[in-house]
Amino acid sequence: MTSLGRVAILGTGQIGTMVGMALRAAPDHAVGEVAVWDRDPAAMEACLRRAGSDRLLRGPEEALGSDLIILATPVAQIVGLVRELGPRLGPRQLLVDTGSSKLDVARAMQRWVPGTAGAVGGHPLCGSSEPGPWSADPALLKGATFVLCPIRDDPFSLGQAGRLVETLGSVALEMDAGEHDRLLARSSHLPHLVAAALAEMSGEVPTSALFSSGLRGAVRLARSDPAMVASFVRANLEEVRAATRELSLQLDRLLAAADSGEERLKAELERARLRARRVGVS
Amino acid sequence: MTSLGRVAILGTGQIGTMVGMALRAAPDHAVGEVAVWDRDPAAMEACLRRAGSDRLLRGPEEALGSDLIILATPVAQIVGLVRELGPRLGPRQLLVDTGSSKLDVARAMQRWVPGTAGAVGGHPLCGSSEPGPWSADPALLKGATFVLCPIRDDPFSLGQAGRLVETLGSVALEMDAGEHDRLLARSSHLPHLVAAALAEMSGEVPTSALFSSGLRGAVRLARSDPAMVASFVRANLEEVRAATRELSLQLDRLLAAADSGEERLKAELERARLRARRVGVS
Repeated sequence: MTSLGRVAILGTGQIGTMVGMALRAAPDHAVGEVAVWDRDPAAMEACLRRAGSDRLLRGPEEALGSDLIILATPVAQIVGLVRELGPRLGPRQLLVDTGSSKLDVARAMQRWVPGTAGAVGGHPLCGSSEPGPWSADPALLKGATFVLCPIRDDPFSLGQAGRLVETLGSVALEMDAGEHDRLLARSSHLPHLVAAALAEMSGEVPTSALFSSGLRGAVRLARSDPAMVASFVRANLEEVRAATRELSLQLDRLLAAADSGEERLKAELERARLRARRVGVS
Repeated sequence: MTSLGRVAILGTGQIGTMVGMALRAAPDHAVGEVAVWDRDPAAMEACLRRAGSDRLLRGPEEALGSDLIILATPVAQIVGLVRELGPRLGPRQLLVDTGSSKLDVARAMQRWVPGTAGAVGGHPLCGSSEPGPWSADPALLKGATFVLCPIRDDPFSLGQAGRLVETLGSVALEMDAGEHDRLLARSSHLPHLVAAALAEMSGEVPTSALFSSGLRGAVRLARSDPAMVASFVRANLEEVRAATRELSLQLDRLLAAADSGEERLKAELERARLRARRVGVS
């Protein structure tokens, strides 16, 4: 496998730290070194102690000394870092991010990264609900889908990003950034908001004796890191809004079926059950 | 413990069968015999083979020979059975049901069961998503909340129903039937519809590679038995409709917070996280 060279990771939360750990544990010569930076010194130290990095950087601009720069901060900060570092990238340097919304990032990359350098949008679909470097587990990357969004016709950069994904043990899935955001609003971002709304409504129930295992499953996503969820919902707000409208229509449809009789509702629920089976067992 | 006498269970699905199994396994003299009936002969036979009954009845009316009659059919059929059997109940005979909506049942009991006999609405909060006698597991009753809704001032009947709950190993929670339905719409019935709606929306996502463990949790309730869900949603439709409107308002509130900025949304999500923690871990 071609070496990815020297790697810098900006942002050592859960994802940044697990990426660092996975890269440093990769077979010989896949990665030269892993240098990291985070605006929170404690998170940076924790990443070092979890063996997620070889050394610490003093600021984001020091990442410009690396061949591959991975942006793993919350989404809102990724665009700022693309703007700050993009114009200063040289030939064969590659920028990849791990944010959970892609259109904003892809547009920033198109605008601020010169054609002589490379940039690819990325989104690893893994992670647990507890944030931070201490919850990083590189095993979660194994077999996980890692979406790659090309920002221009640049097979070399896409190839290098694919090698990064392969080194992490993940499975690359190439996708248009706008399509990614539309689908993720439905498969992830809206479900997070719905879980929060159902959790809020559970506050009206005076006794926990009425909480079922079904409800616990339904509100589980509301236990996610609020900063992370707020960040990706904000970054993908229009698609999340559209998905919320769609949910309302679906619920109206189910209530209308219930109005028409038990058999109609049952038929709708049979259909949903098949869809749920396709999603799989948690 | 006073004996519950001869018991008849009408409906040998998952709940009826697990109740029969638990009663027959209860210590000496708690229960005289357990006779069962189901309109599906195969379900009745399965209950017998799972040791959930001593003998089979030829029809619901044969239950009138028992001291305690437990109605464990789908909700829609419970009201019909109350109407059929209620007027024929004699002194000290007790009717209890296990339906997941209570106002309709309580009203039918008030109307059709004479004051000389006894009737109490009941709802055990347990069960797995797979329906039928073969998925019955009496261990699920241990420690589970068993809601009891008194239908009139009748301490003797409520005491006997409490003894039934105790014999099953469950924990009785006394509650007004209307309040039960209002709360269950929020803690159970709406979450089932939401899971179905999200499952339906997942059909738009062309590749299962984008499905996360979060989504799997969010649609888990959509894997429940469609007949059971259709039955309790129909029986509690007005409260479910009100809860659906409330969910829409909660989602609008979250989107408005997102419009106001990341910090506002984060604060709302922090609050929801505390609520979700109260609901517990699945």
